[in-house]
Amino acid sequence: MTYCVGVLVKEGLAVLADTRTNAGVDNVSTYRKLRIFGNDGKRLIAVASAGSLSTTQTAIERACLGIEAPDTQETESILTAPSIHRAAYILGQAIRFTRDEMEGLRQDDVNFDATLLVGGSVGGERTRLFLVYAAGNFIESGDDTPFLQIGETKYGKPILDRALSYDTELDEAVKIALISFSSTMRSNLAVGLPIDLVTVRSAQCKAELVYRIDDHDEYYRDLNDRWSKALRAAQASIPKPPYGVA
Amino acid sequence: MTYCVGVLVKEGLAVLADTRTNAGVDNVSTYRKLRIFGNDGKRLIAVASAGSLSTTQTAIERACLGIEAPDTQETESILTAPSIHRAAYILGQAIRFTRDEMEGLRQDDVNFDATLLVGGSVGGERTRLFLVYAAGNFIESGDDTPFLQIGETKYGKPILDRALSYDTELDEAVKIALISFSSTMRSNLAVGLPIDLVTVRSAQCKAELVYRIDDHDEYYRDLNDRWSKALRAAQASIPKPPYGVA
Repeated sequence: MTYCVGVLVKEGLAVLADTRTNAGVDNVSTYRKLRIFGNDGKRLIAVASAGSLSTTQTAIERACLGIEAPDTQETESILTAPSIHRAAYILGQAIRFTRDEMEGLRQDDVNFDATLLVGGSVGGERTRLFLVYAAGNFIESGDDTPFLQIGETKYGKPILDRALSYDTELDEAVKIALISFSSTMRSNLAVGLPIDLVTVRSAQCKAELVYRIDDHDEYYRDLNDRWSKALRAAQASIPKPPYGVA
Repeated sequence: MTYCVGVLVKEGLAVLADTRTNAGVDNVSTYRKLRIFGNDGKRLIAVASAGSLSTTQTAIERACLGIEAPDTQETESILTAPSIHRAAYILGQAIRFTRDEMEGLRQDDVNFDATLLVGGSVGGERTRLFLVYAAGNFIESGDDTPFLQIGETKYGKPILDRALSYDTELDEAVKIALISFSSTMRSNLAVGLPIDLVTVRSAQCKAELVYRIDDHDEYYRDLNDRWSKALRAAQASIPKPPYGVA
């Protein structure tokens, strides 16, 4: 399993991804699921992946080497794409092609689906954030709901729904996203530390921060403890039901 | 969609179920999904249902009228079953039979699966709580994880994981379950008020409380507000990430 969140607020973009993969519960490993391309002041593309690791690894490799885009029949790469929207399209086509190719080899009941978060900016355009589905289609985040999730999304969604808005400051948004990870990791062992994190200010093509939060990260441990205690305190502060007996 | 929780703590049992059903987003209705049988001091069987409404309604009717139990080939009913375990078995067989029968009529891509929570006591035996799967098999809650959920389970699971233990008082457990509903309803419109609630003390065959929480319920509204504010306060009390810039 996997959990990835992208947040696009007024100040900029944050993308977070866990690193745990499992093929059954007896084969758990750590793999990077957040990759950054460009980051040179001209192009910043952050890609977080969930689903079949074989599909996402090959698809991203193909999207870098270049694939024939169905609509132009030109060979295009995310490393030269003229916009972040076009990069999302190329990645979508690469996911779709790779998945379909693997489906052709299907044995047993293996699922080759994969989804991506794709965020960033090319050439100083406004920063955008997309969720790419297994079929290659994609949606963009909006100001009303300034986040997108992939993988094990439900445990961590309530805090995002309640706390995030487009005007939330970027570092506060990172904090909220980490609380969302804390809830997810408490309820699903298949999502685990380290968490990879990238932040980038609006319309910048260079990351502000590229960081890995591991087991020893004091801030994350403290956040986890404080959140756990605060939930207990919140629960304790609510009166008991007054409904009485039948 | 549906959300139901059963909690079995030392003091007793609580079962809660929402009442929203939907066949597509343009066909939303209110249906009772929590039913109580017996409640006469000799038998108390609480049944909460999720999944295909046509399957659960017919299966529960059959389990009351009596079905031929595959293992004894006798006609048995939950209204005369000698134990809550046997009632869960009969309900499981009724679900399986009804689902299989409907699968035979399958048109389009309709899913006839259904799951149940079955809790209570027959004749003063210890109170037990089961989750019945669509295949008719079932599991029992344990002291280590004193709750079971069906339907839209994930949004509301983190607070149950963190806050509930076997020693939690029954009214506190109801409060925690209602917080779990609050989180679920915030994130999934297909789960909605009213919430039906039954509580029963250990080894009793008469409900302590049978109650419906509707839109106008002041306690639930206050719980919702307090929880929302407490989450915001908890979030605000956590320092911002110290990770700085790249």
